[in-house]
Amino acid sequence: MNGAEALIATALNEGIEVCFANPGTTEMPMVAALDSVPGMRGVLFLHENAATGAADGYARMAGKPAMTMLHLGPGMMNGLANLHNARRARSPVFNVIGEHASWHVRSDPLLNTDIETVARTVHGYVKENLGASTVAMDTAQTIAEAMAQGGRSGTLILPHDAQLDDAGDTIPVRRALEPASFSSGHVIEAARRIRAGKSALFLGGDGLSEDALMLAGRIAAGAGVALICETFVARMEKGADLPAPIKLPYRLEDAVALLEQFETVVIAGTSRPVAFFGYPGGASHLTKEDQAVTLAVPGDDVTGALAALADELSAPDARAPRSGSLPDMPAGPIDGAAMSAVIANLQPEGAIVMDEGLTSAAAYHAFSDNSPRFTHMQLTGGAIGEGPGAATGAAIACPDRKVINFQADGSGAYSVQALWTQARQNLDVVTVVAANRRYNILGFELERAGIQNPGPTALSMIDLGSPHLDWVKIGEGFGVQGVSVDTAEGLAQALADALEVKGPRLIEAVMA
Amino acid sequence: MNGAEALIATALNEGIEVCFANPGTTEMPMVAALDSVPGMRGVLFLHENAATGAADGYARMAGKPAMTMLHLGPGMMNGLANLHNARRARSPVFNVIGEHASWHVRSDPLLNTDIETVARTVHGYVKENLGASTVAMDTAQTIAEAMAQGGRSGTLILPHDAQLDDAGDTIPVRRALEPASFSSGHVIEAARRIRAGKSALFLGGDGLSEDALMLAGRIAAGAGVALICETFVARMEKGADLPAPIKLPYRLEDAVALLEQFETVVIAGTSRPVAFFGYPGGASHLTKEDQAVTLAVPGDDVTGALAALADELSAPDARAPRSGSLPDMPAGPIDGAAMSAVIANLQPEGAIVMDEGLTSAAAYHAFSDNSPRFTHMQLTGGAIGEGPGAATGAAIACPDRKVINFQADGSGAYSVQALWTQARQNLDVVTVVAANRRYNILGFELERAGIQNPGPTALSMIDLGSPHLDWVKIGEGFGVQGVSVDTAEGLAQALADALEVKGPRLIEAVMA
Repeated sequence: MNGAEALIATALNEGIEVCFANPGTTEMPMVAALDSVPGMRGVLFLHENAATGAADGYARMAGKPAMTMLHLGPGMMNGLANLHNARRARSPVFNVIGEHASWHVRSDPLLNTDIETVARTVHGYVKENLGASTVAMDTAQTIAEAMAQGGRSGTLILPHDAQLDDAGDTIPVRRALEPASFSSGHVIEAARRIRAGKSALFLGGDGLSEDALMLAGRIAAGAGVALICETFVARMEKGADLPAPIKLPYRLEDAVALLEQFETVVIAGTSRPVAFFGYPGGASHLTKEDQAVTLAVPGDDVTGALAALADELSAPDARAPRSGSLPDMPAGPIDGAAMSAVIANLQPEGAIVMDEGLTSAAAYHAFSDNSPRFTHMQLTGGAIGEGPGAATGAAIACPDRKVINFQADGSGAYSVQALWTQARQNLDVVTVVAANRRYNILGFELERAGIQNPGPTALSMIDLGSPHLDWVKIGEGFGVQGVSVDTAEGLAQALADALEVKGPRLIEAVMA
Repeated sequence: MNGAEALIATALNEGIEVCFANPGTTEMPMVAALDSVPGMRGVLFLHENAATGAADGYARMAGKPAMTMLHLGPGMMNGLANLHNARRARSPVFNVIGEHASWHVRSDPLLNTDIETVARTVHGYVKENLGASTVAMDTAQTIAEAMAQGGRSGTLILPHDAQLDDAGDTIPVRRALEPASFSSGHVIEAARRIRAGKSALFLGGDGLSEDALMLAGRIAAGAGVALICETFVARMEKGADLPAPIKLPYRLEDAVALLEQFETVVIAGTSRPVAFFGYPGGASHLTKEDQAVTLAVPGDDVTGALAALADELSAPDARAPRSGSLPDMPAGPIDGAAMSAVIANLQPEGAIVMDEGLTSAAAYHAFSDNSPRFTHMQLTGGAIGEGPGAATGAAIACPDRKVINFQADGSGAYSVQALWTQARQNLDVVTVVAANRRYNILGFELERAGIQNPGPTALSMIDLGSPHLDWVKIGEGFGVQGVSVDTAEGLAQALADALEVKGPRLIEAVMA
C-alpha cells in the first residue's frame, strides 16, 4: 500500500465509514485510495464548512467520527468555524489535511500556510505525519485521540509524498477505547447537597441521552430535584414519555433568575454555565461558586454517575407522570412561535431536528416536549452557519430517520452550499427557513447595548431585506426543490407535503 | 469618545473610507460608532470570506486598506482563506475583530477561541488591545503596520469593554509612510548580468503597474530583455499600448521550459518563482540558484529600481512597437478559449477584470493583450472562492469602472454570498460563470498524478454535474439578475447586454 491507501485501510479498520471531502491536488492520492481500498463512502461538498458541519452532525448521531478530507491550510481555514462548533459539541472529528510534499514546503509555495497552528486552535490532537512508514500508526493514533476526553477531535496532516510512498502492508490492531468512569466522591457530595436544600440537575452532553434522562427523571421524582438542560444542546433525546428538562434561557437575566432559585446546581455532562456574552455589569458565570457542584464532566461516564446518584438518593425506579400537550396549530401570519408550533406538531416519530432557528426557535424547545420521540440538535459553539451541514451529516448517519433543519435565514445564508450535497446524495432533509429577513438577534443586542435609536448604518448592519433572499431560488439553484409560504396554514401544508416524500426539500417561511 | 468611536475616528484620520462588515454582539459598539462618527461607509456581507475578499480587491484597486469588522474568532476563521489570498497579493487589510469583554473571556464562553493565534497565520502584525485609552494609538499603529513591507496587513483585536469605555478625545497625528527605496547594488548587478547574456525580467507586484511596465518596455526594447509576469497577478495594467509580458505558465514543465531559455532571470517586485505544487521528480524553484538575480523585492520601490536599471542600461525612452490584434469572435459551443475571446473583445476601456477563471481562463491573458486599457486581477494565494468578493471590493474602490468577474464555477460556488452585496450596493459587476460543471483542474491533476483510470469515487470528487448548479437561480436568489447561455454567440450577446446597463448582472456560460 502507499501512504494514502494505508490511511484509508487503517481508518476503515478503526470503524470510520464515511469521508466528507473537498479535495485538491495535494489530496489526489487519497482520492484515488477511496477506490483502491474499498469500503469508505466519499461525499463531496462545495465548501469545507459544509463538510465539517456534516462531520459534526454525523458524529453526534453516529457516536463516532467521520473523516474529513480538506485541501491544505486554506481548506482547513474554510472549515474551521464548524470544527469550532464540533469542539463545543464534543463531537469527535477525524480531520485529514493534505500538505505539500515535504521537500517542497520549504520553498513556501503560494498555498503554503501553517496548518498545524491553525488546527491546534480547534483540535485537542494534531499530528504532522513525517513519512509513509508511519501513516497507519499516525492514523490509528489520531482517531483514538479524536475520541478521547469525551471527543476532542484530531487533525492528521499528511504530506503528498507520504501519501505516494510505500507504507508497507501492516495496519495497527484496533485498540479498545478506555472505558469512561465517574467519581463516587462526586456522587456522594451531590447527594448530600441535594438532601440539604432545593436543587437542580444541570444536564448537558451525555447527560441528555435517553438513559441519562430516564435516570434524571428518577432523581427528579424521587428527590424533588428540578431538571435544567443547557441553552444549546449538542444532542438531546426528547418527546413522548421522556423527562423534559427546562432549557436554561439564552437571556442572561432570565438564566440567572432561574438558577438563583436553587441552593445547589448539580452539573452533569457539561461545565458550569457561562454567559454567552459579557454584558457590562453582568455575570460571567451563571452560578455562584458555592452553588454549583460537579457530578460528572464531559468524558466521564455521565449515565453511570446519574445511576449512582439515583441509588445514593434511593430514588425509586419510576418517574413522575408528565402531563402536557402539543401547542395548538397556529393560523395567520408566521412568527417564531407559529413556526415552532407547526414543526413540533408535524414532526414524525424518530425525527432528527437540527435547530439553528435562533430567535425564531425560542419557543421550540418547550413546544416539542410532547412531540413524538425525536432527537434535538442545536448550534453549540455560536459560530452561525452550521445547520445545513449538520443536518446533512445527521441524514448520512441515520438514513432511516427524517431530518428537519429548522434554520434561521441569516445563519443559513452562510452555508447554502450544503444543500447541494443533500440533493446529490438524495438525503431525507427538510430545511425550513425562518425568513425574518434580518439578523434578528442583533436587533435585541443593539437594544441591549443601550442603543435606543440606532442610526442608518447600524440598522443596515442587521437588515437582510434589501434585497431579500429568495430561498426557493437558492435551494433550486443548488438542486433542492422548494416552496415559499407566508401563513402558518401554508407552512403546515408545505411541511406535511415535504415530510411525505423521501429526499431533500426546502420551505421558506416568510415571517410577518 | 468611547473606544469604538476612537477606532472609527482614528481610522478615518488614517484615510480608511470603507468598512466591510459582518458584525455580531461583541461588535455592537463599533456598529453604533459608524453612525456617531460620520464618514465611514459600512458595507454588510452575508459571509466573512466575501468581506475579506472584498477587502483584498479594494486594496488592490484603491492602493490602501479597507477596514473589516468581523465577529470574534469564528468570524475571523470564516474570513481567513481570503485573508490568505490578500497576504499573497500583498494587499494591506486593516482587520478588526471584536473580542469578548476582557473580564469575561477567562470563563471561556462558547464563542471563545484564540483569535491572536489564528490572526498570526495570515497577518504580519497582530495587536490585542488592552483598554480604551490605547484604542486610538493601537488603531493608528495597526493601520501603519498593515501598509508596511509592501502590504503585510494587520489585525486589531478589540475587547467589548474597551469599545465601551472612555477613550478620551485625542487621536494620533497621521504619520507619513516611510518612502520605499531600492538597492543601487542590485541595479548594477542586474545590468551587468543583462549585458552578459540572454535575460528576462520576471515582473510581479508593483512591477506590473503602468509606470513599471513602461520602464520594463524600455528595458526590453533597449537591451533585448524578455518580459515575463507572474502566473497569478494581484494587479496588472494591461491592453492597448502597454508592454505585454508573457505569463509564466501554470504547468510546471512549461514554466521550466520558458525560464531555462534565459541565462539570467531578473526578479522585480516579487520573489523567485516557485512551483504551485511539488510533483514527484519535479522542481520546487523554477529558476536555478545562479540564474535568478533580484532587482527589487516586494516593499521596495520597484518602479524606481526599473528606472535606474533602464538608465544603467542606457535604454532609450522608447519602446518597441507592439503588433497584435484581438482574437476572432468565436461561434458555436463554449469552451475556455471562446469565453476568453468573448470577454477580451467586449470588455470596455477602463474595465477591471477579476479573473478566477482558472482552467477556463487559460487563454485570457494572451487574448487580452490587445484589449482596451484595463486592470487584470487574479486569485493570488490559490485559496479558491475569491472572485466574487474581490470583484465586489474592486467595484466599491472604483465606482466609475466596469468590473467583470470571470469566474470558474467550482470556485464561485464557495462565495455566492458576495452576489448579495453586489445587489444591495448596486455595484457595477458582471459575473461570467464558466460552467464546465466540474472541478476541471482536478481532472488534470488526477491524470498528472498517474491515475489513468480513476474509479467512481475519484470521478465523483471532481464532478459538479450531479446535480448541476443553476447559476441563474443562485444569482437571482441573492438578488442579481442573470441569464444562461450555451453558445459563444449567446455569450457575446449576453455580455454586451450586461455591459450596457449599470448594476450587477450574472451570466452562466454553460460549457460544452
